[in-house]
Amino acid sequence: MSITGSKTDGVAVKLKYGMVGGGPGSFIGDVHRRAIALDGKVDLVAGSFSDVPDEVYETGHELGLGDERLYVTYQEMAEKEAAREDGIDFVVIVTPNFLHYPVAKAFLEVGIHVVCEKPLCFEVAQGEELKKIADAKGCLFGVTYTYTGHVMAKQARDMIAKGEIGEVRVVMAEYPQDWLIESDEELGMQGAWRTNPKLSGRSNCLGDIGSHAENMVNYMTGLKLKKLCAKMDTKVAGRTLDDNSQVLLEYENGATGTLWCSQIAIGNDNALRVRIFGKLGSIDFVQEDSNYMKVTKKGEPTQIYSRGTGAVGEVAGAFSRLPAGHPEGFFAAYANIYSAFAAAVYDKAAGKDVDEESYGYPTIDMGIDGVRFVNKCCDSNDAGSVWVDF
Amino acid sequence: MSITGSKTDGVAVKLKYGMVGGGPGSFIGDVHRRAIALDGKVDLVAGSFSDVPDEVYETGHELGLGDERLYVTYQEMAEKEAAREDGIDFVVIVTPNFLHYPVAKAFLEVGIHVVCEKPLCFEVAQGEELKKIADAKGCLFGVTYTYTGHVMAKQARDMIAKGEIGEVRVVMAEYPQDWLIESDEELGMQGAWRTNPKLSGRSNCLGDIGSHAENMVNYMTGLKLKKLCAKMDTKVAGRTLDDNSQVLLEYENGATGTLWCSQIAIGNDNALRVRIFGKLGSIDFVQEDSNYMKVTKKGEPTQIYSRGTGAVGEVAGAFSRLPAGHPEGFFAAYANIYSAFAAAVYDKAAGKDVDEESYGYPTIDMGIDGVRFVNKCCDSNDAGSVWVDF
Amino acid sequence: MSITGSKTDGVAVKLKYGMVGGGPGSFIGDVHRRAIALDGKVDLVAGSFSDVPDEVYETGHELGLGDERLYVTYQEMAEKEAAREDGIDFVVIVTPNFLHYPVAKAFLEVGIHVVCEKPLCFEVAQGEELKKIADAKGCLFGVTYTYTGHVMAKQARDMIAKGEIGEVRVVMAEYPQDWLIESDEELGMQGAWRTNPKLSGRSNCLGDIGSHAENMVNYMTGLKLKKLCAKMDTKVAGRTLDDNSQVLLEYENGATGTLWCSQIAIGNDNALRVRIFGKLGSIDFVQEDSNYMKVTKKGEPTQIYSRGTGAVGEVAGAFSRLPAGHPEGFFAAYANIYSAFAAAVYDKAAGKDVDEESYGYPTIDMGIDGVRFVNKCCDSNDAGSVWVDF
Amino acid sequence: MSITGSKTDGVAVKLKYGMVGGGPGSFIGDVHRRAIALDGKVDLVAGSFSDVPDEVYETGHELGLGDERLYVTYQEMAEKEAAREDGIDFVVIVTPNFLHYPVAKAFLEVGIHVVCEKPLCFEVAQGEELKKIADAKGCLFGVTYTYTGHVMAKQARDMIAKGEIGEVRVVMAEYPQDWLIESDEELGMQGAWRTNPKLSGRSNCLGDIGSHAENMVNYMTGLKLKKLCAKMDTKVAGRTLDDNSQVLLEYENGATGTLWCSQIAIGNDNALRVRIFGKLGSIDFVQEDSNYMKVTKKGEPTQIYSRGTGAVGEVAGAFSRLPAGHPEGFFAAYANIYSAFAAAVYDKAAGKDVDEESYGYPTIDMGIDGVRFVNKCCDSNDAGSVWVDF
Repeated sequence: MSITGSKTDGVAVKLKYGMVGGGPGSFIGDVHRRAIALDGKVDLVAGSFSDVPDEVYETGHELGLGDERLYVTYQEMAEKEAAREDGIDFVVIVTPNFLHYPVAKAFLEVGIHVVCEKPLCFEVAQGEELKKIADAKGCLFGVTYTYTGHVMAKQARDMIAKGEIGEVRVVMAEYPQDWLIESDEELGMQGAWRTNPKLSGRSNCLGDIGSHAENMVNYMTGLKLKKLCAKMDTKVAGRTLDDNSQVLLEYENGATGTLWCSQIAIGNDNALRVRIFGKLGSIDFVQEDSNYMKVTKKGEPTQIYSRGTGAVGEVAGAFSRLPAGHPEGFFAAYANIYSAFAAAVYDKAAGKDVDEESYGYPTIDMGIDGVRFVNKCCDSNDAGSVWVDF
Repeated sequence: MSITGSKTDGVAVKLKYGMVGGGPGSFIGDVHRRAIALDGKVDLVAGSFSDVPDEVYETGHELGLGDERLYVTYQEMAEKEAAREDGIDFVVIVTPNFLHYPVAKAFLEVGIHVVCEKPLCFEVAQGEELKKIADAKGCLFGVTYTYTGHVMAKQARDMIAKGEIGEVRVVMAEYPQDWLIESDEELGMQGAWRTNPKLSGRSNCLGDIGSHAENMVNYMTGLKLKKLCAKMDTKVAGRTLDDNSQVLLEYENGATGTLWCSQIAIGNDNALRVRIFGKLGSIDFVQEDSNYMKVTKKGEPTQIYSRGTGAVGEVAGAFSRLPAGHPEGFFAAYANIYSAFAAAVYDKAAGKDVDEESYGYPTIDMGIDGVRFVNKCCDSNDAGSVWVDF
Repeated sequence: MSITGSKTDGVAVKLKYGMVGGGPGSFIGDVHRRAIALDGKVDLVAGSFSDVPDEVYETGHELGLGDERLYVTYQEMAEKEAAREDGIDFVVIVTPNFLHYPVAKAFLEVGIHVVCEKPLCFEVAQGEELKKIADAKGCLFGVTYTYTGHVMAKQARDMIAKGEIGEVRVVMAEYPQDWLIESDEELGMQGAWRTNPKLSGRSNCLGDIGSHAENMVNYMTGLKLKKLCAKMDTKVAGRTLDDNSQVLLEYENGATGTLWCSQIAIGNDNALRVRIFGKLGSIDFVQEDSNYMKVTKKGEPTQIYSRGTGAVGEVAGAFSRLPAGHPEGFFAAYANIYSAFAAAVYDKAAGKDVDEESYGYPTIDMGIDGVRFVNKCCDSNDAGSVWVDF
Repeated sequence: MSITGSKTDGVAVKLKYGMVGGGPGSFIGDVHRRAIALDGKVDLVAGSFSDVPDEVYETGHELGLGDERLYVTYQEMAEKEAAREDGIDFVVIVTPNFLHYPVAKAFLEVGIHVVCEKPLCFEVAQGEELKKIADAKGCLFGVTYTYTGHVMAKQARDMIAKGEIGEVRVVMAEYPQDWLIESDEELGMQGAWRTNPKLSGRSNCLGDIGSHAENMVNYMTGLKLKKLCAKMDTKVAGRTLDDNSQVLLEYENGATGTLWCSQIAIGNDNALRVRIFGKLGSIDFVQEDSNYMKVTKKGEPTQIYSRGTGAVGEVAGAFSRLPAGHPEGFFAAYANIYSAFAAAVYDKAAGKDVDEESYGYPTIDMGIDGVRFVNKCCDSNDAGSVWVDF
């Protein structure tokens, strides 16, 4: 795998992508576009940025696209791009959550690879259906669990896979924020839809950020959940969905853990932290300080691994763009998901067998796992915070 | 209240204490003696340091005590000290845990004030009995939950009492260590008795350190537990009692929280941390960095309060011995418990009404609360980690 | 000023740039291109990436440029681009240091705006000549002192300008690295040219990184140096130029300070840190943790300002691309220099009076100041580390 | 050496000390007494706490001393204690600085060991005279450079002595505080005498705290100064002596460094930090976080050594009183100086050859070195901040 792009006959062939969602006012669509641009290996050539036609054209023109590649419905975009000789290599889905499933389905059915924001969908069955279609059509499918893109998250994954901290015994995952500390009225639209069950499904906090924490544990350790017990609470009056949730976890290998997510934890911006304790060592990953990671081997002093140094192995190190001490951040994390996905697209195009998990981007299996996690937590909570099997 | 001792007619009158336990090889007895010596206001004058007569004399002589005040049984010590004109003002109990109850009872019954290491006892009923005797005899009773002695723990308590962070909504308490990472055989005696149910009661990890975390939340917030759900695990093979436990908490005011304690969390020395999130702010207390505390008010940057500066209010500031930047540590925390207890003893002796809680040392009620907490966690865990009412 | 680009008649007009240097193996040229791409407002359309013709075409083709806009000499590029209707709006100079001066001169003389890597040149007289030409031709000139691009560096500048920390009294600047700890033979080419006076001028360490530290103080405070005393040392045997230097500083307002830079300070990746102490407060900026900055007002607790929160004012906040807790890094810092420069280019094109300093990018005056600083340090050191007037 | 005291025939023999200075309102005298009490191996038996007779008796009685061992002049105390069979084993001098020399001289002349606060005296000649008398009388002499007492300072010293970081190349010492930020009038007496040349000698800031920083480098590395260049400034109007000083350092082995001390650096409580960079590694010691120390070996990640763990060697580890994670602070640092000094006193009494430096407490040679350092800095500064030989 390479993050520097591939070539045919010595000439770099850039990939082409289209975007669904990401119109005026969209934060996350803009992030995806900037992150992809950072590496300059994939060009945006088409889009259906909104369900409001004027907004499709407004955003498209701002991005330098001509009307020919702008579409007022995602269905039309899927159909026409699939038909073009120079159609997109993959689609990026950054719509509101409830559209992830139908949009992904539409593109898979015409054989176009998909990168989709999380959550993959609301129901496990939908996720499994998408997977079945992807398999049938030979489509690749990435889910943008952003933080897996950090070099240090990859380093943790690599070290754990190699047994450097021994069998995992305890997992502590937390993801506190404080941006929903005000009531929904004070917050206005941005917060409001997240706490509305019609738009956000059964959970707000667990679905929005708790699932990142669960995914990170899964990504780093590969552990399979056995059962869980969730307590989901709404702390701000007038809100319907959870804004602070705590989950006890038990994994199939006997490891146990706790996951806490909150949007009302004053003093926390975006403080995803995952600590993994094994029989021989531990790792401590803090998203806001993601150029570093604390590693402790049994009986030795804690070490501070720095991205870009020799402490970082080849697998993770291949995703570094800058020397140590020259911080990489959130955009680079997204870019790393895309560079890995692009590598898989190249290899697929070259006729190679592609094992998606080995490329390092979050797969549709992780997306389904995330949907199952949120639903199981809701099941547990609805039943009085009892233990439910996973 | 004053931490500098009181005087009668301009002359400082030193208090006198005796110790039960703390003989050869005892770590904690030595800590108590050093901490008390730090302020120089209370003298050790008597002791029953062991149940082995030779050890009583060995330790007593090392500490400069004459045979007249050395006792081979605590019963004899209680009886004789109570009978002396110049008998001890209070007893310090630092025996193995299972002796806390009978020793405390013996001294209370002869009307001697008690300071007892935690856990107060093994059964709630024992604790309530001790409380009844103390009340009847007019005895003061302190329980040495060490970390409440830190100036910043007191500052947190004071701020929360004054409403500076608003009503408490979420509590995150954790206390990871890694010193039981080896098997009990490798650890030898020191670890072994802690994982032996006959000597340590129903829990090792929750009882030993989890109860500190629970107590700290209680001390800082005054919140009353409503119910809990505990998952207690033994990670190291061959061990009987828990060495890693996680508890979901719900308080009577609706606050929720998580408590984690572990003795196998590689990379952690003694990392008690308590985060309290209110409607208007939060505090973040880390025992290993106890000269500082992070405080965030809603919508403002996080502030680093430094012990010894004007950021610390009068109530907590009265316990500082040194200017800011001149670190106080574990001994000073213990000393603060004793200076507060001594102040109560002086006031009691002076015939004042003494509301123990107002002095700032952990009371017998906190000791009983701690015993109830550990037992409720064991009840929950034994029943399959279900919710139990507190 | 805006970082989101400007429009003409509602249609975004992208700027066009060309690059001199940045061919195969160039680290910094790649960084500039990625940083510019991050915002997607300026397109690369021409280049003279090397003095080896094959390399010009190799890099150009990789970047998607056609032969028409590729040039084997910078002189030809300057001439032809100036002549084109659709010629570049500005040139980016990322050549080896000794070429900065002639390349910049060539483009200025044909009236093309310039962004140049630091050092601007080797001699103050060269810098002043460039400035004279730029003024005469109406050209804008930015110097990429990278770290001024960090939002928090801008916040510091803004706060100091507004008097929030009072008159500056003490300045502590340091920039330790450890990548030249090995001998030049072991390091190979990358390190070697930096320690070669023919290629790097009179200084290695002070010129390469010390000047960043000096610039950052200048950028944040606007203070003018009055005199300095430099001790420049070579710690690794066999090396000609300095790899560890220390400078005492005195400013015209009476402020004093120390600057330390090192490339052999084991344990430091790229640890630029600038502390500014005023009469009323202080700021503490650490490049490796540039999403945060410590601010202390007299008599108050230290505060941790977080990029993306309300603690950051409008001037600096306008450069944030992401919410708090979503880290921005080195690429974003560069991108901020370019977004500010692009804004100036737009305004200049629109016929406005442009005061370059107000846009927030480092100006040619800062570039000249940097060259003077390095030369004065060398003068001081050569004379036995005596004080020299600035 | 042992920190637990020695015994004769199985019975602990406590040492006896007297104190000169430390009367009402004295901060540092109280600190010394508490620190000594922490170990309980040395008893206070005599004192001349003030030059005001009433204060001598007030403090003496508060400390439980009878009139027989209280003296209104230090001369009388020296004479009478020397004559007693049960006279003091050593004297602790905590008077105002200008009295250190005559008091020390008086006790040495009657053959009593001395522990003296820093600065040892004002003139190098005085220090050399004291040393000559001490040698002639066979007296031990400790100077309480507090921070050398921290376990981690000892660990640094031990590691450097063993070559673990290779030959020292660069030294960065800083000691910023902010407690003199107000004018002397606002500060009242406490600050005022420190900025008064009659009472404090030629320097305030360098003498008071800069000398700690210089001493720490000397203690850790054993390096000998070759020459220095000092810039001493007074930042607060109306003050006579320096409150912010910077010094360039060159050592005999070619190592170079910078020392900065300040009492007006807002945001700093007592932030002594010493970084030592060698050919093979570095150490980073921060007094306010003295239970930890960062150590980096060339090419490896930075490690966080924790006091009380196996990372700390035997020499330094012998001074730990508590397990890792149970913080020791300022009192323990002082106590470690006294425990080492007491061990030397025991050994001297037992007729052993005593090499004071090997015990780990700061010797009179370090005291003289500190006096010379301050005077040389003043010489340099008075001559226009030129280099002066050491």
